[in-house]
Amino acid sequence: MLAASRIFSVKIVCQASEAVHVDNKSPSGVNLADTLNNGNGHRRVAMSSSFKTVRKLKVVSPVPADIDVANSVEPLHIAEIAKDLNLSPDHYDLYGKHKAKVLLSVLDDLQTLQDGYYVVVGGITPTPLGEGKSTTTVGLCQALGAFLDKKVVTCLRQPSQGPTFGIKGGAAGGGYSQVIPMDEFNLHLTGDIHAITAANNLLAAAIDTRIFHEATQSDKALFNRLCPPNKEGKKKFSDIMFRRLKKLCISKTQPEDLTPEEVTKFARLDIDPNSITWRRVVDVNDRFLRKITVGQGPDEKGMVRETGFDISVASEIMAVLALTTSLADMRERLGKMVIGNSKNGDPITADDLGIGGALTVLMKDAINPTLMQTLEGTPVLVHAGPFANIAHGNSSIVADKIALKLVGPGGFVVTEAGFGSDIGTEKFMNIKCRYSGLTPQCAIIVATIRALKMHGGGPEVVAGKPLDHAYLAENIALLEAGCVNLARHISNTKAYGVNVVVAINKFSTDTEAELNTVKNAALAAGAYDAVICTHHAHGGKGAVDLGIAVQRACENAANSFQFLYSLDISIKEKIEAIAKSYGASGVEYSEQAEKQIQMYTNQGFSNLPICMAKTQYSFSHKAGEKGAPSGFILPIRDVRASIGAGFIYPLVGTMSTMPGLPTRPCFYDIDLDTSTGKVIGLS
Amino acid sequence: MLAASRIFSVKIVCQASEAVHVDNKSPSGVNLADTLNNGNGHRRVAMSSSFKTVRKLKVVSPVPADIDVANSVEPLHIAEIAKDLNLSPDHYDLYGKHKAKVLLSVLDDLQTLQDGYYVVVGGITPTPLGEGKSTTTVGLCQALGAFLDKKVVTCLRQPSQGPTFGIKGGAAGGGYSQVIPMDEFNLHLTGDIHAITAANNLLAAAIDTRIFHEATQSDKALFNRLCPPNKEGKKKFSDIMFRRLKKLCISKTQPEDLTPEEVTKFARLDIDPNSITWRRVVDVNDRFLRKITVGQGPDEKGMVRETGFDISVASEIMAVLALTTSLADMRERLGKMVIGNSKNGDPITADDLGIGGALTVLMKDAINPTLMQTLEGTPVLVHAGPFANIAHGNSSIVADKIALKLVGPGGFVVTEAGFGSDIGTEKFMNIKCRYSGLTPQCAIIVATIRALKMHGGGPEVVAGKPLDHAYLAENIALLEAGCVNLARHISNTKAYGVNVVVAINKFSTDTEAELNTVKNAALAAGAYDAVICTHHAHGGKGAVDLGIAVQRACENAANSFQFLYSLDISIKEKIEAIAKSYGASGVEYSEQAEKQIQMYTNQGFSNLPICMAKTQYSFSHKAGEKGAPSGFILPIRDVRASIGAGFIYPLVGTMSTMPGLPTRPCFYDIDLDTSTGKVIGLS
Repeated sequence: MLAASRIFSVKIVCQASEAVHVDNKSPSGVNLADTLNNGNGHRRVAMSSSFKTVRKLKVVSPVPADIDVANSVEPLHIAEIAKDLNLSPDHYDLYGKHKAKVLLSVLDDLQTLQDGYYVVVGGITPTPLGEGKSTTTVGLCQALGAFLDKKVVTCLRQPSQGPTFGIKGGAAGGGYSQVIPMDEFNLHLTGDIHAITAANNLLAAAIDTRIFHEATQSDKALFNRLCPPNKEGKKKFSDIMFRRLKKLCISKTQPEDLTPEEVTKFARLDIDPNSITWRRVVDVNDRFLRKITVGQGPDEKGMVRETGFDISVASEIMAVLALTTSLADMRERLGKMVIGNSKNGDPITADDLGIGGALTVLMKDAINPTLMQTLEGTPVLVHAGPFANIAHGNSSIVADKIALKLVGPGGFVVTEAGFGSDIGTEKFMNIKCRYSGLTPQCAIIVATIRALKMHGGGPEVVAGKPLDHAYLAENIALLEAGCVNLARHISNTKAYGVNVVVAINKFSTDTEAELNTVKNAALAAGAYDAVICTHHAHGGKGAVDLGIAVQRACENAANSFQFLYSLDISIKEKIEAIAKSYGASGVEYSEQAEKQIQMYTNQGFSNLPICMAKTQYSFSHKAGEKGAPSGFILPIRDVRASIGAGFIYPLVGTMSTMPGLPTRPCFYDIDLDTSTGKVIGLS
Repeated sequence: MLAASRIFSVKIVCQASEAVHVDNKSPSGVNLADTLNNGNGHRRVAMSSSFKTVRKLKVVSPVPADIDVANSVEPLHIAEIAKDLNLSPDHYDLYGKHKAKVLLSVLDDLQTLQDGYYVVVGGITPTPLGEGKSTTTVGLCQALGAFLDKKVVTCLRQPSQGPTFGIKGGAAGGGYSQVIPMDEFNLHLTGDIHAITAANNLLAAAIDTRIFHEATQSDKALFNRLCPPNKEGKKKFSDIMFRRLKKLCISKTQPEDLTPEEVTKFARLDIDPNSITWRRVVDVNDRFLRKITVGQGPDEKGMVRETGFDISVASEIMAVLALTTSLADMRERLGKMVIGNSKNGDPITADDLGIGGALTVLMKDAINPTLMQTLEGTPVLVHAGPFANIAHGNSSIVADKIALKLVGPGGFVVTEAGFGSDIGTEKFMNIKCRYSGLTPQCAIIVATIRALKMHGGGPEVVAGKPLDHAYLAENIALLEAGCVNLARHISNTKAYGVNVVVAINKFSTDTEAELNTVKNAALAAGAYDAVICTHHAHGGKGAVDLGIAVQRACENAANSFQFLYSLDISIKEKIEAIAKSYGASGVEYSEQAEKQIQMYTNQGFSNLPICMAKTQYSFSHKAGEKGAPSGFILPIRDVRASIGAGFIYPLVGTMSTMPGLPTRPCFYDIDLDTSTGKVIGLS
C-alpha cells in the first residue's frame, strides 16, 4: 500500500514539474475543461488520489500589501476544506464560515490509518527582518496541494494578538503565500489564547488568595473550610484533594481520620512568596506590567508582593497546549505545573491548590486545532504558539498528529519551528518529537541572500531602517563568507538523521550568481537539495521546485532518526550537548544556575529535556556574533522549569517576555469599515 | 394583522391554560401522535403560527443539582433553533453545535417587520441569595414557547467567568428553567468578554506607553514619529488623526502645514496621570489586583503609577456593547470613551490616542449576540453583561432589537434587568430604552415570600448560612409588613406607563395563605396581575399562568410609556428625580461629587442619563434598611462618567469592582471527565 502510493507520487511529480512551466496550466494532465468551476474563482479538480479544492490565484506585480492580497481572494467555506480532508461534520465544530475546530476525537476514528510524510521548516540565523519561514511554509504547501496534487496540511502557530497592534503586524505568511482570512488568523482566532489567559490568571489569583487565607487562619479552621460539612453534616474530600493526599502519602479517605499533623500537612501549603515563579499574563504589549506590586488594597491587609505580567503566549499553559497529546494528558500536565515552593522547598503544584481540573475545563476547547485555508485553498491547522526562547516555539503535537492521519501515506504535513534551526528545529527534534513519538523525514532550512551577507560581515540590519547597499547589489565575496552559517545549520540538522533541503527565499535584488553560490554551498555542506523559491511573488507556483525536492527527500529518507541527547544524563550534560552544537567549547554556570540545577535534580526533575532560552540572532549567546562562531564559553545565567509542559529552561541571557508599544503603534492604521464590516489597515 | 394575531393569541391561551392541567399534554389541541418525533426526546409540533422545536422535560422531585438537570437533556443542534426563528444560515455563524452568533445584518433584512411584545423582568429588593429573576425569565419563556405556542426569545446577560470559579457558581437559571449547555453558557461562550478584556487592556497599555513616550521626546520628535515619512518621503496623517485634528479645530490636511503650536497641541496629549480613570481588567476574581503599582521595571525609568484591575464585565467597553445599536455607532462610542484629562482639564479620548478603530476591530464579532436554547428548546439570545451598579446592568440593545423582529407581532421578547426594579428596571427604562427607542408593554417584578419576610423585619439572610426558622414556617404578619417593599416596586414601575405583573416565585416551604397574602398585596398596590409560579420545579409548565398573565398585560398595554426624567435638566436634577423614587427626601453631595458634576457640566456631558451606583439591598443607600424606607438624605460620594457608553454614574457608596476567591473556591469541585469530555462539578 505504502510502496504503491510512493510510485504513484513520483509519477505525479514528473508531470507536475512540467506543468508549472506552461503558464499555470492544470497539473498532471487534467484538462481545465474537465474541472468543476463554481463560478467563484474556485474550481474542483478531480484527481485519482482525492478531490481537491484549488483556487486560481491572479498574481500582480509588484506584490501588493499583505492585507490587499488577502482580501483579493474570497475564502471558501471551511466546510469545503474539511470535506476535502474527508472530515465528517462530526469531526469538527464550525466557528463562523472560515474557521473550524477539528475535534481531537478524530484521532480515535483515524487511528488505524498510516501517517503521511512529516516535514519541519527551520531557518538559518535570521536578521531582525525575518527570512520568510512562515511564508515558505505556506508557499510550499500551496505548491504541494495546488500544483503537485498532494494531500497536504500546513501546521502553523497561532500568533500573539499583542504584536498585531504594536510593531510587528500579523503573522499569516506574506505576499501570495498566506493563510486567510488574515484578520481572523491574527485576532482572537477561536479563542485559544484567551482561554490560556483566563486559566493562567485564575491560577495566579488562587496562589495569592491561598497565601492570604493561610495567613489569617489556623490549620484547623483552614481544614474545616477546605472540607466543609455537607447537608448531612458529613465532611468529604473532593476528588482533586486525593491528589494532594497521595503526594503526601496519606492514604486515608475520610477528613475526620486525619491526625492534627496530617491536617496541617494537607491544609497548609505554606507557599514561600519569594519562590513563586507563576506570573500573570495579558495578550497585550503592556510594558508597564513587566514589574508591578500587587495587594496594595486595604482589604489585602498589607500582603503586598512584587510580581509582573508576561504576554499570554509566554504562559506555561501555552507550552502545555503545544506539547500535550490528549485530554487526559493535558489534565495531568496542567495539574502538575509547579508554581513555586513551600517554605520547606517542596514544589507546589496546581493540583495542590485544587485547581488542575478547573484549568482543564477552561482549556477543553482550546485543545482542538483550528482549520483554516491558504490563498490557494489548501488546508491549514493553526494551533498553539509558545515562545521560542523560554519555551519550545513549535505548534502543537495534536495538530501535527491529526494532520498526519488526514493526509495519509504519500501526503505531506509541513510544520514550522520558530527562529533558526539552532533553536526551533533543535527543540522540535529533542522536545516536541520526544513527546509526540513522531519523526520527520525531511527538514527544510530557509535561507536568504540578505541574511547570509550579514553573516559574511555585512553591516547591521535594523528593522524600520533602509537596507545598506551591500544587501541590494551583487556581492559574492560577502555571501560566500556568510555561508558558514548555513553550513552549520545543515550539519546540525542532518545529525538528527533527516534529509535537509535548503529553501532559498529569493528577493528581487538577488542575482543569478548569488543564488547559485548559496545553492552550491548548501550542497557542499551536505544538503539533500537546495532550491530557489519565489512563493512570495508567485504563490504555490513559485515553490513547485521546492515541493518536488521535499517529496524526493521524504521518499528517500533513511529512517535513521536520532536525538541529540538522551534524557537519562544529567541536566548539565544535556545543556552541554546542546551548547556543543552551537559551537561552544564549554559552559559556565552562575551560582544561581548551579543552585537551581541542584534543586530541580533533588526534586526529581532532572530527566526532563532542555529548552535553551538563547538569542535567535547568533549561534552563541551574543546577538552580534554572526556566521558560525566557535570556541566560546556559553554562560548559563539561571535555570528555570516548566514542569507541566515538561522541560527545564536554562537562561542564556535576559529574555523579554513582555513587549512594549512604540510611539506610533500599528493600531493607528487599523479600523473597521463599518459599512462592509471589513478590517482595514492590518499589516 | 396585529389585531387578528391578538385574537388568535387569546384563543391559544385558553386552550393552553387547560392543557397544562392534564399532565404535560400537548397544548392547543394538537395531538401528540401528529407530531414529528426525531427519536431523541425532541419533537416538532406543527402549529398554525410556526414550526416549533419543543422538548419533553422529564421532571424529577426533589429537583437535582443544576448541572445534573442541564446534563439530563441533550441539546438540539443550534441550527434547528435558528430554523425555528426563520433565520437563514446567512444570518448566523455557528460556534460549535450549540451556539451561534446571530449577525447584526439580520436587522437590515427584517427592518420592515413589526416588533413583538417587549417584557422586562425586574425584582423586589433581594436577599443575598437572589430571588430567582433569571430562573423566572427562563421559565416564563419556556411556558410561552413550549406550552402557549408563542414565538418567544429570552434575552439574557452573559455572566462573568470569574464568579463561576469563586463562590457564586453559574448564572444560567436554575432547576428546570435553564439555558443549556450550562457549561458553555458560563465559560468563554463565544468570546465576547475575552474581546472586551483584550480591547480594554490594549487601551490601558496605550495610555501608559503614551505618557512614557511623551515624557522622553520633544514635541517635534513626537510629531515626526506620529507622522513618519512614507517610502516617497511624504508625511501623512492617518485617518484616525483627523478626529483629533477636528477636535482641536485644525482643518489642515498636511502634516507639513501645522504651525509649531499646532504640532504641540496635536502631538502632546499631556495626560494628567492623576486624572486617569481607565483601569485594566481580567475576567478572574483576583483581589490582589484591586490596587497595584505599575511601571516598576528598570526600562520604565521610574514612571511608576498606582492603579488597579477590575473584573472584565466592569469595563466601560462592556457597557458600550450593551448600549450600542450598530457597528457604526459602536465605532463612535468606543472612540469617544474618556480615559482621563489633560493637565489643562480637557477630556482625552480613545480616538485622541489613535486607538478607537483598533478597539472596534477587536469588538467586531462581539457585537453579534449568541443564540442558545432553554431546557425546553426555546431560543435564547445571550449578549453583554454590564455591572448593575457602576453600569446599567442590562443585556444588549441589539439582542433585544433582533429578538423583537424575530418573534414578530404577537410574539414575546423577555429580557432581564439586574438587581431590584429600583436599579435594574429603572436603568432599563431611563438608559437602555432611551438609547434603543424601544418601549416595553409589560414589566415583571419577581418576588419571594422569603425576601418579603426579610423586609417585614425578619432576621438577616446570609449566603452560606442556614435560613432562620422565620423563613421556613408560616408567618403572615412578618410577610404583610414586608409587602411595602413590593408595593413601592410596583408603583415605581407603573410610573413608566407599563402593566406590572408580579411573579411570586414559590418555594416548597411557602404556604397557601402566604402566597395569597402576597397576591392580594400586589393587586392592592396596582399590579395588573400577580401569579404564583413553580418553574424551578416544573419548567415551563410551572409558569404557564404567568405566561397567560403576561400575554394579557401586553395585549392590554396602554401605550403610555414615559421616562422618569428628561435629559435636558441638570445632572443634579436628574439625580434628585431618581433619589425621590427611592423614597429619599433629599440628596447630599460630597465636595468631590460637586467638583465632578461641575467638571462634567463644563465638558458638555450634562445631557447624559444617570446611572446610580447604589446597593441593591435597600431602596436607600444603607443595605440594612429593608422594606420601603423614606425621608432619608441620599449621599453622593463621588460622580464618574462612562462617556462612550453614554451615562454619568454617581457613587452612592463604595462599589467593589473586583471580587475575591474564598478559602475553598468552587474550582475545587470542577473537573473534566477526560473520557467523555464532559464538565463535572459546575454549579
